[in-house]
Amino acid sequence: MRGPRTGVPAPLRAALDDERLARAAWSRLAEPGDAAAAALVGEVGAALALEAVVTGRGPARWRSRLEEVDPAADVAAVHALGGRLLVPGDEEWPEPVDDLARADDEGRRSLSPPLALWVRGPLRLDQATRTAAALVGTRTPTGYGEHVAAELAGGLADRGFTVWSGGAYGIDAVVHRAALAVGGRSVAVLACGVDRAYPAGNTALIARLAERGAVLSEVPPGSVPTRWRFLERNRLIAAATRGTVVVEAAWRSGALATADRAEKLLRAVGAVPGPVDSAMSAGCHRLLRERGAVCVTGADEAAELLGRAGEHPLPARSVEVRPLDGLDPTELRVAECLPRRGSATTERVARDAGLDVADVQAVLGRLELTGVAGRTDGGWVLAVRT
Amino acid sequence: MRGPRTGVPAPLRAALDDERLARAAWSRLAEPGDAAAAALVGEVGAALALEAVVTGRGPARWRSRLEEVDPAADVAAVHALGGRLLVPGDEEWPEPVDDLARADDEGRRSLSPPLALWVRGPLRLDQATRTAAALVGTRTPTGYGEHVAAELAGGLADRGFTVWSGGAYGIDAVVHRAALAVGGRSVAVLACGVDRAYPAGNTALIARLAERGAVLSEVPPGSVPTRWRFLERNRLIAAATRGTVVVEAAWRSGALATADRAEKLLRAVGAVPGPVDSAMSAGCHRLLRERGAVCVTGADEAAELLGRAGEHPLPARSVEVRPLDGLDPTELRVAECLPRRGSATTERVARDAGLDVADVQAVLGRLELTGVAGRTDGGWVLAVRT
Repeated sequence: MRGPRTGVPAPLRAALDDERLARAAWSRLAEPGDAAAAALVGEVGAALALEAVVTGRGPARWRSRLEEVDPAADVAAVHALGGRLLVPGDEEWPEPVDDLARADDEGRRSLSPPLALWVRGPLRLDQATRTAAALVGTRTPTGYGEHVAAELAGGLADRGFTVWSGGAYGIDAVVHRAALAVGGRSVAVLACGVDRAYPAGNTALIARLAERGAVLSEVPPGSVPTRWRFLERNRLIAAATRGTVVVEAAWRSGALATADRAEKLLRAVGAVPGPVDSAMSAGCHRLLRERGAVCVTGADEAAELLGRAGEHPLPARSVEVRPLDGLDPTELRVAECLPRRGSATTERVARDAGLDVADVQAVLGRLELTGVAGRTDGGWVLAVRT
Repeated sequence: MRGPRTGVPAPLRAALDDERLARAAWSRLAEPGDAAAAALVGEVGAALALEAVVTGRGPARWRSRLEEVDPAADVAAVHALGGRLLVPGDEEWPEPVDDLARADDEGRRSLSPPLALWVRGPLRLDQATRTAAALVGTRTPTGYGEHVAAELAGGLADRGFTVWSGGAYGIDAVVHRAALAVGGRSVAVLACGVDRAYPAGNTALIARLAERGAVLSEVPPGSVPTRWRFLERNRLIAAATRGTVVVEAAWRSGALATADRAEKLLRAVGAVPGPVDSAMSAGCHRLLRERGAVCVTGADEAAELLGRAGEHPLPARSVEVRPLDGLDPTELRVAECLPRRGSATTERVARDAGLDVADVQAVLGRLELTGVAGRTDGGWVLAVRT
């Protein structure tokens, strides 16, 4: 125990000796993505960092919210929902999100790992990040976008992927519904507390995810969603997964921010193409054109992109094999000079093909063996339909 | 004059002393893309190479067609159509096709320059290759593909590009029609002689191109189209232009062969995306996914890709500018904590934003200057609609 702690708000006292509670306190003190807070906590630990703020020895910036912080109450609130608080070091902590600390960001927003995560649902986050795919997109998809989102989410879930998305209308909601529909695993990352459903129209869906998948947030229960929190939420989706596929997105779209974070984190980025005159595909085409995103047209391709190397090889494409496939250039030229009916002499074929008679003789012998050329009374005929 | 030429077929005699006639003869002796013929002619000249074939001193392979060759008759035939024979060195010779001699091809088909070109139409080929775009695609496009092909062709022609394509149904035909419709320049490269129209349904279109644009082939008048000649024809379209954009193509398509040749020739390759469930976009998506083709969604993007560097910059995209655009992260956080109506004290805003009061004061001052924040009796209010 350190010296007397006069002036420390009562709800914070226990946190000064408890790293988990201190992390919980920090998740309310600092906004998501606050790189300075993450750096301070990372360096000296959450409890010491909190003490520095409380005693006024640390930077002033986090002091304005001190009055509101009651980490034990927040933990009790998430427990009351059947949920839990996760901090780094917990067995269930989703380690890929720590890559945020290493991410290089030249942009004006810095990437930093979450200080804590508030979670509901039976799905363990360490497992949920093992084979994880982010599927994101516009809140106002077209019928086409909804169709493709459902195909991708269902297909990836079927292949053992945990599907991650936000909790918004549109692509996010379609993705979760499709994953749940095939009995798959789905995770929603919220910009508000996990006790809230935003937007309200997704209340039932978010409740279902809390029952059968996972719902998580880095802001404590009771927190409201802000534009800032939506933006920072995207980095968690990008970091938790092996890659992000954007299904439909306008030229400017939050989904593009997620793809941007994924790119910075060296995750895979895919984009679903669509009609060039569809405003809801403009963002996807932009990713393909400007950012080198991989073109993804179905669950096979998404799995190949987002799985471990070699784990989801693309199935061989069944294409019609045509009779003249696989011929070398000279064979093809000879085959093309064979009549479909009647017959042609070797000399005639050689002339038509522009090749030497002796060469053509040899080629015709090979083509006869493979069934392409047939002998007739007068010479040769094409023995296949092309 | 060399010694007596006994046994030389009469129609070939003049060609042994005339490089142009000899080239014309070679264009009938050798099939398009015959790398050995191109190499021999390139090394010793067409006349000497022809003499080697005629006298039996050269390789036997080109001898089978000798009886059929009458270059003066072929030249007379193209003249009768108002057309002309072009050989390398002619002022009108389209020099970019000579890149075919330098192209590195690891595939089983070698790239080689045309031995001669047979041309109809008022458009000079040297000019037609100056700012040239290849637009190719399936013979069986969807309505979507036709629409995009027409947009691209018309848009590129409007911007001064000469549009190159084949003479087939589908995308080829739409491209030529759209270019002609805006008074633009269009060139069709045929796999048969320029005296023929294949397919017959494009007779009127090909005639119009011969009147207002150009129709060309590397096989002499009277030649029939073969699959081989279609394949080799593609390399001319790729070589003559600064790049190839595939508008619609099945997973297997001749248009992909053109893109492949363009890639080997270090020309630009673009592909138009479409619905993922459209079989006619599968080839385009394949190019985007496997070959690094550039995603092209309109004439602006095609012009940027296919024009000289900086000549066709993409127009600035008009996007709605939102009131909070351009704010730095701290400003955005503060702005988001301003009430839309009523007012909030600086202290309240600082608490909500999780920032220091002094910092927030400074930020609010800046936001007031830019009109984002407004002063009220009790404090601050958001002064813009978001």
